[in-house]
Amino acid sequence: MESAITKLVDVFKSYAGKDKQLGTKEFRKLVRAELKNLITCTEDDKAVDDLKHKTDKNNDGKISFEEYFILVTELATKIYKLQ
Amino acid sequence: MESAITKLVDVFKSYAGKDKQLGTKEFRKLVRAELKNLITCTEDDKAVDDLKHKTDKNNDGKISFEEYFILVTELATKIYKLQ
Repeated sequence: MESAITKLVDVFKSYAGKDKQLGTKEFRKLVRAELKNLITCTEDDKAVDDLKHKTDKNNDGKISFEEYFILVTELATKIYKLQ
Repeated sequence: MESAITKLVDVFKSYAGKDKQLGTKEFRKLVRAELKNLITCTEDDKAVDDLKHKTDKNNDGKISFEEYFILVTELATKIYKLQ
């Protein structure tokens, strides 16, 4: 469990920019590389940008660690409910 | 990333009771087996029960998947801030 939590932290850090957040380019890269089974249309820029917009709770154009982990929680809940 | 999220869902399900929640006994087992590095005093019943009480947001004596994932988020944030 601990390694899974650490992995999720490391994934965010590996894609985040110098400002420790995910801009549009970084978010697209993360989604395409890491979430291609859990999220549909990851190759469609508009679909991924729409997801980013929904994830960007404070609408500053960037995804913070906190916002990223809200997305992780939503995905985990989706998996949990589907099983 | 997807396997890490799935792992966290599977851990909850493997400890949850028939009611799909974690009672005191199940929560102690999970914390002792899965979180002995991230959480201190896991062998101390009182310390673990205090954590359970804090995690039990609706105070029904049980930890739901949602409450469990709030704890996961808190642990991830702790790791992120320490790195």
